[in-house]
Amino acid sequence: MTTAESTSSSTLNPEVDGHSYKRQKLDSTTPADEKAARRAKFENVFDQIAKELLEYVKGEGMPKDAVEWYEKVLYHNTPGGKLNRGMSVVDTVEILKGRPLEEEEYVKAAILGWCVELLQAYFLVADDIMDQSVTRRGQPCWYKMPNVGNIAINDAFMLEAAIYHLLKKHFRSEKYYVDLLELFLETTFQTELGQLVDLITAPEDHVDLNKFSLEKHHLIVVYKTAFYSFYLPVALAMRVHGIDDKEAYDLALSILIPLGEYFQVQDDYLDCYGKPEHIGKIGTDILDNKCSWNVNTALKYATPEQRKILDDNYGQKDSIAESRVKDIFSAAPISIPERFEAYEKESYEKINGLIESVNEEKTGLKKEVFKSFLAKVYKRSK
Amino acid sequence: MTTAESTSSSTLNPEVDGHSYKRQKLDSTTPADEKAARRAKFENVFDQIAKELLEYVKGEGMPKDAVEWYEKVLYHNTPGGKLNRGMSVVDTVEILKGRPLEEEEYVKAAILGWCVELLQAYFLVADDIMDQSVTRRGQPCWYKMPNVGNIAINDAFMLEAAIYHLLKKHFRSEKYYVDLLELFLETTFQTELGQLVDLITAPEDHVDLNKFSLEKHHLIVVYKTAFYSFYLPVALAMRVHGIDDKEAYDLALSILIPLGEYFQVQDDYLDCYGKPEHIGKIGTDILDNKCSWNVNTALKYATPEQRKILDDNYGQKDSIAESRVKDIFSAAPISIPERFEAYEKESYEKINGLIESVNEEKTGLKKEVFKSFLAKVYKRSK
Repeated sequence: MTTAESTSSSTLNPEVDGHSYKRQKLDSTTPADEKAARRAKFENVFDQIAKELLEYVKGEGMPKDAVEWYEKVLYHNTPGGKLNRGMSVVDTVEILKGRPLEEEEYVKAAILGWCVELLQAYFLVADDIMDQSVTRRGQPCWYKMPNVGNIAINDAFMLEAAIYHLLKKHFRSEKYYVDLLELFLETTFQTELGQLVDLITAPEDHVDLNKFSLEKHHLIVVYKTAFYSFYLPVALAMRVHGIDDKEAYDLALSILIPLGEYFQVQDDYLDCYGKPEHIGKIGTDILDNKCSWNVNTALKYATPEQRKILDDNYGQKDSIAESRVKDIFSAAPISIPERFEAYEKESYEKINGLIESVNEEKTGLKKEVFKSFLAKVYKRSK
Repeated sequence: MTTAESTSSSTLNPEVDGHSYKRQKLDSTTPADEKAARRAKFENVFDQIAKELLEYVKGEGMPKDAVEWYEKVLYHNTPGGKLNRGMSVVDTVEILKGRPLEEEEYVKAAILGWCVELLQAYFLVADDIMDQSVTRRGQPCWYKMPNVGNIAINDAFMLEAAIYHLLKKHFRSEKYYVDLLELFLETTFQTELGQLVDLITAPEDHVDLNKFSLEKHHLIVVYKTAFYSFYLPVALAMRVHGIDDKEAYDLALSILIPLGEYFQVQDDYLDCYGKPEHIGKIGTDILDNKCSWNVNTALKYATPEQRKILDDNYGQKDSIAESRVKDIFSAAPISIPERFEAYEKESYEKINGLIESVNEEKTGLKKEVFKSFLAKVYKRSK
């Protein structure tokens, strides 16, 4: 999902460098080191951001315990994830400029990246309460931490508020400031709409597969995930780079929404068929009555007998029921693995076609922006 | 809290019209009728707003059940209150212009008024979950409604998102558009900061009066209530009227923050000393361990013996403990009623003094804006 190595010094990559071992020893720049350094650089900007936010709160005269509380809210919920969304803002600006960023450019792009991560933190803190989740990113969910509970709702609000404080502080004088505000505000509304449809279509405690369909799945995925995870980071980078032609944004959207949907379908597929050691968790979509691509595809192709088994076993908190559903998923004519393979091939070709049709000169975009996203996503196993 | 009758046709007011009875019969314009008509006119604009929001959601392809859900969220939570905050935007614009508003002007001011009410709805839906409240405005809290529960968190988000959708739709082309966005965004952050301090200072399940103080109370009241209830409506009206001198906003703030604090101190006082038939509820601040003006004033003046009784009985879910606290509140040297009377007199004089010092020509403001607020608040019993 990120645009990681695309613009970094590929001559230091051992795969294309005969003297890779020596170079590694001298420069300590294996791809893994480079990735870690890239992440560390991005994380440094978070420290700056957190400091600014806490200075503001202190400056408003808030008591010490409130300032410390907010510090914990920020650090517990914002920096611990994969940071793909946030770092892709930086990567996209770099690709658009076609050169490494100067320090000031880097910091501005990284701040926008962190704003995307703050938006995600705001959603996740709230989602975890709504889903009654227990852990997130290998630690307790924020609302599960001692003395937090439902105060986490107001904490979620304050993660969102941080975005607009940072935008004002760092972008107030840019002519695209209002565009940044609108991008965040509109994407927020879209994500909330997706979350609403998901919540009322697939409540954990009331299974009704008649509410499901691939069309509903498409809608949920596009609104709940694709806008904020794929379109938003690229659109922010385009604004910073000075693109203001509406057609360019429409074009980016027309590629990134299918890409985001493809990513989420993979996510759904891997929840059931991925290896736990690859995906870092044991999937629970079947147990949790999730409106996933797997079940919607199964519903589309199920025989009446298979449908009955799905109705009786999907979303039940019971591992025998779960394995019955898994068997049905894999059985003909449903055959999820084969259908996924076909879906993946078709999506890849379709998205590649869209990317190839980008007119770089007319729009100021670069095909590489989308190619690097697609390369990260295609045939991933984690 | 509103600026109600100030600019309406006072000749129809029976108090200044010898033929009041006849006029009332002919025109049906008693002050009560007028107030009802004013409210009905404002409420009509909400129907338009809700329609626009639902059209947008439909237009995004959301399924019927999601559109209906959002309609219920909007109507259950936004229009049922006193609407003082919202209507004060309209009243203030009218006072600033010194004439009745034309239809288009009215609608624009009313939309901003409804945005303030949407902001309040967003806070209240979330506050009710955090406080585990049962009823609000004489009906069940939204999260207590069938099938809602914690989905209400996302619904609160969508009440907030409505604000920015409406601002974009109706104010995008105004040069003060970005000022409106910032006013809402900054006020939201301030209110959330106030809510945080309140939540960690006075958790319902853990009484520690050492955390309380009149300074803490001041901070909570200003941030949690005064900014969004008093400053925001007037600042919005000033923007619409075209005032853009920063000093004018600072001046308005310097009057409206003390006014908002005075209002909240009254609210706290009435929770304990108001008549239930006047205030429309039975106060529960003592039972709920609220950081109110009463308890903070009591803590300041209590003898060691009185302090002990407060420590042992405040915030206990027990009506005998509650009445022990009430006795202490009224006993010397605490004497809350006498101290409140002195506070009220002092506040009134101070705020009046601030209002009298307003330079109308220099700032474009009118004293009447603040006078009408103060008149609504002074010596209220409900």
